[in-house]
Amino acid sequence: MPSSEQVVRHFQEELEHLKARLLEMGGLAEQQVQLSVKGLVERDRDLLERVLLGDEPLNQLHMEIDGRCFTLLALYQPMAVDLRAIVSAVKINTDLERVGDLAINIAEAARLYATHLAVKKLIDIPRMATIAQGMLRDALDAFVKRDIELAKQVLNADDTLDGLKNQIFRELLTYMLQDPTTIEPALELILISRHLERIGDHATNIAEDVIFMVSAKDVRHHSTEDRPGSTGWPPA
Amino acid sequence: MPSSEQVVRHFQEELEHLKARLLEMGGLAEQQVQLSVKGLVERDRDLLERVLLGDEPLNQLHMEIDGRCFTLLALYQPMAVDLRAIVSAVKINTDLERVGDLAINIAEAARLYATHLAVKKLIDIPRMATIAQGMLRDALDAFVKRDIELAKQVLNADDTLDGLKNQIFRELLTYMLQDPTTIEPALELILISRHLERIGDHATNIAEDVIFMVSAKDVRHHSTEDRPGSTGWPPA
Repeated sequence: MPSSEQVVRHFQEELEHLKARLLEMGGLAEQQVQLSVKGLVERDRDLLERVLLGDEPLNQLHMEIDGRCFTLLALYQPMAVDLRAIVSAVKINTDLERVGDLAINIAEAARLYATHLAVKKLIDIPRMATIAQGMLRDALDAFVKRDIELAKQVLNADDTLDGLKNQIFRELLTYMLQDPTTIEPALELILISRHLERIGDHATNIAEDVIFMVSAKDVRHHSTEDRPGSTGWPPA
Repeated sequence: MPSSEQVVRHFQEELEHLKARLLEMGGLAEQQVQLSVKGLVERDRDLLERVLLGDEPLNQLHMEIDGRCFTLLALYQPMAVDLRAIVSAVKINTDLERVGDLAINIAEAARLYATHLAVKKLIDIPRMATIAQGMLRDALDAFVKRDIELAKQVLNADDTLDGLKNQIFRELLTYMLQDPTTIEPALELILISRHLERIGDHATNIAEDVIFMVSAKDVRHHSTEDRPGSTGWPPA
């Protein structure tokens, strides 16, 4: 029978492995987002096709990571921060998979956009993408390093993203009202900006999970003023 | 010290309690969706305000249920189907909370819609809402009863929802192209139909979790033809 130190060491090794796989998945998801927006800006249909066909590695990782989490829970029955880390990993895994789906949605909308004349030079949408990708990277980094301060920065960045989304909406609406030929392509751009907003939401979810994992404090459903708040669940 | 039968009984009691709370949360989320669409159709601003202010009970339940799941994992260290049930509960809890957020998004868009003349008599959007609510109810019912067949029905209903969403998009686009005064309100309706589609996606997620929980088979990331498939993760 393995000694308890061996069990602890094996668990920590497995946990590190799990983190590495989550980072890998985050990298793939981020790349899909980046390529979908590059394909949009450059009207590059081949690139968009690559994104549309490129979610298989992400899906495989999604299932593998879920399985690793179950195995860790079943074999090691971790407690406290380790338990919270594994449950967070399950949630983060789901968030990253959705980010991959959103990249597909962006590529689909971009493919339709490319069948119309360009409405305008795209500046704010790539900016939204850069912010959302940065949020995602920081949130995962915060998870791996158990860094609450970095996680809080992600929560703040979400407001910038929301502001840009509203600005894009108002601007495109003006185009649509002035020139009906822009209605169809502008609609696609509006939907794309919503997809990017949701990617930011997923990064926010991850950041909230990190704060909960490290501090056992639940910062969801609180205004920014009273963050961090705790529901008392679970007992720390 | 409690006997192992007592421990098993306590766990089962707690699990039943958890299921009851998840059903309660599902009921609240469904009600928020229903009221938001009723407020949209009847252009009832008071009702929409009620929805916008009404997510506090859902948020409280969200945190409580998450806490219950952690406590069950930490205290009872469940295995096999029980472990999968608790991890599924964590995921389902997240899905239901997002459904509540989407009801808020619908109410916000409906409030803007009500500031414009009505574009058309709304028929397909309430239909989408009815289908999405039914999917949600069935998915939760399938979770509580561990009913794979019911869960599979939810997966099939999602196609109907997608079809309606596309139909709504095409129809509203026609209105927008013919009459620019409809652009702003039609945009809100398009966004609402996307929110409803996402509610269906959450119901689909829940149904997939149920199938995994009961059968340990992962039906995500497979085409309908090769469902159910298994990744071998975790070992059954």
